[in-house]
Amino acid sequence: MFQYTLNTAKEGFYNITDHVKDAIRRSGIINGICLVYCPHTSAGITINESADPDVVKDLLYALNETFPDRPEFRHSEGNSAAHLKSSVIGNSVNLIVANRTPVLGTWQAIYFTEFDGPRVRKFYIQVIEKA
Amino acid sequence: MFQYTLNTAKEGFYNITDHVKDAIRRSGIINGICLVYCPHTSAGITINESADPDVVKDLLYALNETFPDRPEFRHSEGNSAAHLKSSVIGNSVNLIVANRTPVLGTWQAIYFTEFDGPRVRKFYIQVIEKA
Amino acid sequence: MFQYTLNTAKEGFYNITDHVKDAIRRSGIINGICLVYCPHTSAGITINESADPDVVKDLLYALNETFPDRPEFRHSEGNSAAHLKSSVIGNSVNLIVANRTPVLGTWQAIYFTEFDGPRVRKFYIQVIEKA
Repeated sequence: MFQYTLNTAKEGFYNITDHVKDAIRRSGIINGICLVYCPHTSAGITINESADPDVVKDLLYALNETFPDRPEFRHSEGNSAAHLKSSVIGNSVNLIVANRTPVLGTWQAIYFTEFDGPRVRKFYIQVIEKA
Repeated sequence: MFQYTLNTAKEGFYNITDHVKDAIRRSGIINGICLVYCPHTSAGITINESADPDVVKDLLYALNETFPDRPEFRHSEGNSAAHLKSSVIGNSVNLIVANRTPVLGTWQAIYFTEFDGPRVRKFYIQVIEKA
Repeated sequence: MFQYTLNTAKEGFYNITDHVKDAIRRSGIINGICLVYCPHTSAGITINESADPDVVKDLLYALNETFPDRPEFRHSEGNSAAHLKSSVIGNSVNLIVANRTPVLGTWQAIYFTEFDGPRVRKFYIQVIEKA
């Protein structure tokens, strides 16, 4: 298992594709699968476009509109909307590993999604070999 | 593959972290990954906070507000909103296994999410060893 | 890794369960896990009911209502709503493989979800053996 640290702002999508490539390279595994895991409950991991940086800005905008803070929320920390976005986006992604690299589409990048920063965040990567 | 059964209410988040730990222990696997899988189409699996029970109450409240029943729905069983919440939350989660236990963040717990109970539900767990 | 191609319409849920069964059969693997992966950023993969075709029609309708195009979106291609639906639904699913087949619930089918077609789409399948 490989561990990485990230210093986040209040919210945002952080491109961690290079970290994932680094973990796969260090694992020595040629073919298999790779799990990228976020151990936090107000952040997540997703895959989306990186060519135009406006895409993830639009995603963050729409997520905040669709999953707003609500007066009915009772969680005393006041960050239930962030917890919800974490479960909707998901806290992990899986990649196929082929020839020592993650198989990504032309426009795909792997993102750590912060919904309740600023914080020091971690994410873990496990690589499993195809026998 | 390990199988567990759950008796659910109309809706709710059920903490199944101990079941997952049990399956990993019984598998005998020390390091690897673990897949927790829900075979139902109106329920799901997610990871979120367990310290304050209000968090998952807020999540369930907001999911019902965001994905309501709609007059335009045509599915004759009348539970399309539950099917939608199943696909938005997702029907499985993946965990990293290290030292015979799932690697979880401080506040993380694994939940079976019921959106159309009461029912007798099942979930499956597969543990894969890291070679 | 197995690769399949799909010709899609403007939007829709495409049942790819037979493709997944085909990949598992061709892999020769008896027990393990299977990753179904979409390399596109305006499409996804999910699991839901196939018995009544109205279910996925209702899902698509509600996704479009919940995640509409917005005047505030800045991505020049104008398909940010499709990118959002991709990240909310997720771009992969995991299955348990037992006795050379995916373990699916009675009503479950595996869907490729198109949010920005028509296009020629691909999806990849990796099968990992349980040691």
